Parts: sequence; structure tokens; C-alpha cells
Amino acid sequence: MLKYQHIANEIEKYIEEHELQQGYKLPSLETFMGQYQVSKSTITKSLDLLEKKGVIFQVRGSGIFVRRHKRKGYISLLSNQGFKKDLEDFQITSEIIELDVRKPAQEAALNLNIKQDDDIYYVKRIRFIHGQTLCLEESYYNKSIVTYLNKEIVSESIFHYITEGLGLKIGFSDVFLHVDKLNEEEATYLGLKKGDPKLYMESVFHLTNGQPFDFSKVTYNYEQSQFFIQANSYFL
Amino acid sequence: MLKYQHIANEIEKYIEEHELQQGYKLPSLETFMGQYQVSKSTITKSLDLLEKKGVIFQVRGSGIFVRRHKRKGYISLLSNQGFKKDLEDFQITSEIIELDVRKPAQEAALNLNIKQDDDIYYVKRIRFIHGQTLCLEESYYNKSIVTYLNKEIVSESIFHYITEGLGLKIGFSDVFLHVDKLNEEEATYLGLKKGDPKLYMESVFHLTNGQPFDFSKVTYNYEQSQFFIQANSYFL
Repeated sequence: MLKYQHIANEIEKYIEEHELQQGYKLPSLETFMGQYQVSKSTITKSLDLLEKKGVIFQVRGSGIFVRRHKRKGYISLLSNQGFKKDLEDFQITSEIIELDVRKPAQEAALNLNIKQDDDIYYVKRIRFIHGQTLCLEESYYNKSIVTYLNKEIVSESIFHYITEGLGLKIGFSDVFLHVDKLNEEEATYLGLKKGDPKLYMESVFHLTNGQPFDFSKVTYNYEQSQFFIQANSYFL
Repeated sequence: MLKYQHIANEIEKYIEEHELQQGYKLPSLETFMGQYQVSKSTITKSLDLLEKKGVIFQVRGSGIFVRRHKRKGYISLLSNQGFKKDLEDFQITSEIIELDVRKPAQEAALNLNIKQDDDIYYVKRIRFIHGQTLCLEESYYNKSIVTYLNKEIVSESIFHYITEGLGLKIGFSDVFLHVDKLNEEEATYLGLKKGDPKLYMESVFHLTNGQPFDFSKVTYNYEQSQFFIQANSYFL
């Protein structure tokens, strides 16, 4: 971890531990420079990272303020860490329905930008929050990137394994979502009724070099899931 | 508009007009510098802006690539421009149900960080896409910031008016969403059945100085709405 990232983490931890509220005015840039004994450009990078993450906002000529407006138990639609991180105070478990190496159908091949005779890992799991069904998840991993998976890995956070175990760098993701009614199979897995509402989400995760490595289709139990997004205005 | 923003717009327009696909390699930073006759720091700012907007991704030592992976007709959950912009190829119209100045209930007062005896503009509209109901929207505007609204403004894009007409600078927003079943009133307005699925979204929009000015509650017609998010990995 680079110095500016480490400092950003420290500042974020401070805000969380002291439960500082939105609008709380933080020390000036100069004070932070002195406190961490770093250059202006380092602390500027730390603060820009915190702004991107939605932890603070900076007002020119006025100061640096706490933004954090997270509601507990909400899943971030922007974090690429997998939601186990958002729900770390909750007990998340998984039941594996299928795990195998196979050839992708056209949809997965297109989204992963591979050929239909390339290999993928296919994972189908139900995830639970405090013993209640949270979602049904089907994931397709490009096996030439995610070279190995087993039951033990798949029953925990796959993203943690991908970054820590395989050392891959996750870059960006495209997420598409809509609301629909549960079909029979989904309803059975989630313990709901056919025709009940669902949030359906398709995601394509890319490495920092732009290669897609994971195409996922997730159907959420509407009774157990809620989501948040912190958006910045980069648009004119 | 600043020079670097103008160049970013030019590059984005070029990508769109030529329908360049994800992974297409763009010219080098040096080539862009020559083409636009600007300094390295200016073009770097342009490219960083495009990266934040999800238009490109940059790979150290390898180049600059097209990211754009938008699907037509999807509403961005990250843009703060109001969705009229995302759906500009579609015909969006509004029917005003209520528009008045009133005192906020506790929920709106809390979200707008004002007192219950302060004034707000309350707007309730149905929005249509090609004549089909898209969503039912209730918005609460802090009247000391959004000082004037009328029927004509409210039947068009309020966000366009706020930025262009009132000259306000929109900074960031917090969005909370979940899926549920439509109640009787919502179903009637949207032309659906009670118990049908809905996406329900609460947003708080802030100015660049951090002041919340708009608290909105939107219920989407699940048959007409789909959403996308382009997420970057600022997380470690």
C-alpha cells in the first residue's frame, strides 16, 4: 500500500471511530501535512482518494468536510469488493449449488470476451444473511485468469481470494440492473413465492488492464436487500 | 467550461460518433497534446475526467482505451443530471399532480437539514417515456436554495433549470434503493397492479458546498426502467 493510501485509510478510520457526521469540518490540509509529516502533494492525493470514495467532500476556500452518509446494512453498488465487506457486521454464509469447469454459452463468452471453447469456472451459490436468503448468484470466471477455485474458496468471499490469493488487481465494473418478478426456480431457492419482486443485476468485472474476468448474474431477495450509491458530479 | 473539460468533451464526442468499442486503443497522451496544442497537465486532467466518467480506462505502460459500455435506454445511477439526459433519444414527458410551497414533514426536514417551519417546494409528477409511465416522483426542494418553480419548469427537466436557470452547482448525491411491491396508489398512477414489483429510490442531492437542496422519492415502473452503473475500483 502506498503512503497516500495508508494516510487515507487512517483518516477514514478516524472518521468512523469518532462517528463524525456529514458536514463535520475536518482539519485543514496544512494540519494534516504536519500531522502525517508528508508533502502537500501526498496529502492532496489522500484527500482526493477519500473524496472519490465518498468519505469527504472538499469545498474550495472553505475546507474539508465529512461526507459519510452510509446507512447500516445497505450494500454499496459502487464498491468492487463484493458485498461481504459492506455487510461485515452481518453474518454472511453461502450454500454452493454448483461448481465446475465448463465451456461458456454465448452470453458468458461475449461478456468475458472469450471464445465458446475456452474454459470457465461456473459457480452457482445461494448467499445468506443471518440465515435468511440474501441472493441467488451465478458467476462465470475466465479460467485463464481465475486459474483455480474449490469448494472452500467458493463458500467464502471469492473476491477476497482473487485479490489476496491470486494477487489480481480489480479495475472497474459495469453493472446493469432491473426489477422483475421471480420465476419458479428463483422463488424456490430464495424461499419466496413465484411472482414476488426481485432485483436482478448483471455485472462484468475487469482487471486494471481492462480484461473482463467475472460475469455475474445475481437475483436478490427483496425482503433482505437494500442498496446505496454515493455519486459525485463529474458531469457538466 | 474550462479548457480540459472542453477537450474531454471533444474526445468523448469522437468516441461516440465513431462508435468505438470497449478496448479500442486511443492515441497516446503525447499525440493528444499535439492534437489539442495543450500542456501535459491539461491533457492529463482531461483524461482523468474521462476515466472518472467511465468513458476510458488507462493502463500504465500500455495505453488509453475506450471503456464505454453503456446499453441504450439504461438510466445511469451515477449521473446527477436527472435521467432526461440518459434518455435523450427517448421522448420524456411529465404530468404534474401537485406543485406547491409548504412546510416539510419530519422526514424531508431531516434529509434537507432544515427546520420544519422552513419552506419547501413540493413537486409530485408522473414521468412518461414514449407515452408509457416511467415513474412516480415526489421531490422536496429547500426553497431558500431553489427559490422559484412553476408549472412550466416542473413539466420539463428541473435539473436543467437548477443548473442553467438558477446557476446552482450540483456536487454529490446519496442514493438509497430497494425493491418492494406497489401499493394501491402507486399502482394506479403507474397503470400497474397492486402488488407488482417496484424499484423505490430515495436520493439526497447536495450543492458543491455540501448543502442538501433536493430530497426525492421515486417509484419506478419495473416494465419500463433499467439501470446501469460504471464503478471504478478506488478501494484497496
